[in-house]
Amino acid sequence: MTANWRLQGVQRPFLIGSGIKDITPREQLEECLSAIAIREPTVRAFAYIDIEGAWVAADRATERRLAGRSISPIDGMVVGIKDIIETAAMPTGMGSPLYDGWRSGRDAASVAALKEAGAIILGKTVTTEFAATEPGSTRNPWDSRRTPGGCSSGSAAAVAAGFVNAALGTQVLGSIMRPASFCGCFGFKPSVGGLNRGGSHDAFSQSCTGVLAASLEDLWQVAYEIVIRAGGDPGYPGLSGPPRAPVAKKPSRLIFLETAGWAGASPEGKSKFEQAIADLRQAGIEILTRADHPDIEAVEASIAPSITVSNLINDWEGRWPLNTYRDRDIDKLSRHMRERLERAEAMSLTDARAALSQRSEIRRQYTKLAALCDACITLSASGPAPLGLESTGSPVFAAPASLLGAPAISIPYFTVESLPLGFQLVAAVGADANLFANAAALCELIANS
Amino acid sequence: MTANWRLQGVQRPFLIGSGIKDITPREQLEECLSAIAIREPTVRAFAYIDIEGAWVAADRATERRLAGRSISPIDGMVVGIKDIIETAAMPTGMGSPLYDGWRSGRDAASVAALKEAGAIILGKTVTTEFAATEPGSTRNPWDSRRTPGGCSSGSAAAVAAGFVNAALGTQVLGSIMRPASFCGCFGFKPSVGGLNRGGSHDAFSQSCTGVLAASLEDLWQVAYEIVIRAGGDPGYPGLSGPPRAPVAKKPSRLIFLETAGWAGASPEGKSKFEQAIADLRQAGIEILTRADHPDIEAVEASIAPSITVSNLINDWEGRWPLNTYRDRDIDKLSRHMRERLERAEAMSLTDARAALSQRSEIRRQYTKLAALCDACITLSASGPAPLGLESTGSPVFAAPASLLGAPAISIPYFTVESLPLGFQLVAAVGADANLFANAAALCELIANS
Repeated sequence: MTANWRLQGVQRPFLIGSGIKDITPREQLEECLSAIAIREPTVRAFAYIDIEGAWVAADRATERRLAGRSISPIDGMVVGIKDIIETAAMPTGMGSPLYDGWRSGRDAASVAALKEAGAIILGKTVTTEFAATEPGSTRNPWDSRRTPGGCSSGSAAAVAAGFVNAALGTQVLGSIMRPASFCGCFGFKPSVGGLNRGGSHDAFSQSCTGVLAASLEDLWQVAYEIVIRAGGDPGYPGLSGPPRAPVAKKPSRLIFLETAGWAGASPEGKSKFEQAIADLRQAGIEILTRADHPDIEAVEASIAPSITVSNLINDWEGRWPLNTYRDRDIDKLSRHMRERLERAEAMSLTDARAALSQRSEIRRQYTKLAALCDACITLSASGPAPLGLESTGSPVFAAPASLLGAPAISIPYFTVESLPLGFQLVAAVGADANLFANAAALCELIANS
Repeated sequence: MTANWRLQGVQRPFLIGSGIKDITPREQLEECLSAIAIREPTVRAFAYIDIEGAWVAADRATERRLAGRSISPIDGMVVGIKDIIETAAMPTGMGSPLYDGWRSGRDAASVAALKEAGAIILGKTVTTEFAATEPGSTRNPWDSRRTPGGCSSGSAAAVAAGFVNAALGTQVLGSIMRPASFCGCFGFKPSVGGLNRGGSHDAFSQSCTGVLAASLEDLWQVAYEIVIRAGGDPGYPGLSGPPRAPVAKKPSRLIFLETAGWAGASPEGKSKFEQAIADLRQAGIEILTRADHPDIEAVEASIAPSITVSNLINDWEGRWPLNTYRDRDIDKLSRHMRERLERAEAMSLTDARAALSQRSEIRRQYTKLAALCDACITLSASGPAPLGLESTGSPVFAAPASLLGAPAISIPYFTVESLPLGFQLVAAVGADANLFANAAALCELIANS
């Protein structure tokens, strides 16, 4: 089996076994700041760093650790916050000149929860403009000529470069899976509504707050510590699962979903993925494909237009606040954003309802797969990070889970053209904990191969 | 039949017959400003008035009117915006010293839509602190010793006092029905998700943006012009119905829901309501009660704890941003808010999920009534506005529709102790248009009685 991505630069996981790191939060922060001092000038993952605040938090966390009074398993963890999410101590720039230096005066629900759990909020990580298309300054840590992916660009790059233990991201189309894949870290997008988005400026119905980190355990723990304190989105039960990362459970049956991305995926990526499937079968896991069951074929057909349907919904739901930003200062909106607003304003309520109905129907189709498998698997992206910083790459492999509102994990699994490429698992809505258990089993298989 | 509330001070409806008022928007604004000059010092409905901006908008609307190029039926309508909803041209104070003078720099989705439709945004109407319990400065226009109700206090008072043609409110428990009832204007809370709440700071799962106005036609038109431009909440289809207020349709069968409020309602209010039921029966409308069908009895039982269940959900969902406001400056939170936060922080995610499950079950019960009736009817409040400004009165009659996510209309129907008291209609979720048609029929019955 292909070796897991042992990225020399990636911060080692925060939670080791017992969940208590063998270095103090102060030492942890020192490690992060050293990596930042060396590589941030190239990677440009941060929109803002609050070193002073981080030291205060690290001192307190260290005191608690030494006194045996740690608040949570992530007490002292160094965390980055995607700059679309509000923070009281730091500006929230949203990747837009309209919000340059803007201070909301409050923490988002997720940030308040992380602080309550003892995490050290080190900085704001670069986002594309309003978490959409227009790239920010960040470069891929493995090759600065390449995109880190978007829109949680800075979060993925910061984790991969060892600047933070974990970072918050958001995904409405491909924005956690893709940068996790390109940067070679773990990424988790929970079931829709899983983590409270209060104070995060991505008010789309299929957007989610998620996590990027250096291990599955860290991914889970960060998400868990948020949900128990802040809940899910209003009206949602929120991410459900145990207080520590679910124990590995080998799936008995997985479905390989080609998605619309397979035809255009990198040949080496496809070949590596096919080898992984062979390895998993070798390990006794049954793998079904579209040829094996009409329900799988039906789901493949229904998710094929995931990007188109998602874009219709996101355009409509993004009409506001873009229209009011346009009225304020159109010159501060990128061409991408102006075009998006034009598309939205050309839509009618009837068009929007049609897209929502189509999504409901696609989601209904997808529920049938739960009876057939433990989870679905596919690539996290079409290939390794493409050259160039003008585009954040294709979201084609990530879009289906976003449209479905389904939980997804990207594992840094493959090496393609000497760059990372992710292995994506997608489960039924609400089956987040089981997805983690299956992902952990796959990681064990890799480690033992 | 009891006479409809012909409030001498209430601004006459904006839409008359053809929907084009017989006075120009400038004259309309003059009327509103005259009323404000005389009565605002006592009523105190506004947190902020933008006279200059209103004149500019009125001039433009007047030009369009005279040129026969009105944008919409509400082009030139004078509107107030509850001060929990963001406005680009005016501060958004949220009834809290924490947001005194705060400018978000953008319009909420609903406000942007109203402006696109040509409405004149005259000012921000007083809200209770963060649209919750702590009263603002507003007094009841019919007796300044009495509460206007909350939390859309200023919106209801401004409409009733003739300061505006219509105003936006929000309801999470009783905040449109109650002030509409106490102030003697029409109020509409749509089905949950009906109007886009982007930029409105009431991020509760059962909260809705709604409308207060001087006629059913105005209520509908304001809501309609918002939804076609801004949609519903992300992921929701939004308020559905015709481009002009639904034509009156006499209901064949209504259900009288006592709710938990009936036992404690004012004797005169109850007697008037019973007389109204007799009148409706006289007019050939069948009225069922809990004694007539086990499903009605089951719904009465299930909605009895509406306030308790709503408060649990609202407390949990309001933990954020109150926790971050507390961290910022606890002295600027009222005792009510601090207590609410304490209750929220004493809750666990499990408690919150239990309350959400209970709400789902109550909603499921309620769906059975759709097969039995056109709509449900009850009082809008326990009685006329109580004396005193320390409390906004009981939300007991309004809470069920809030919990159910069901559309509700309050008609200024009764005179009790020489004060207004509302007649409330509640329909199935999504049946907003039919509710308006039924309400229009009841108004015709009143007018002809």
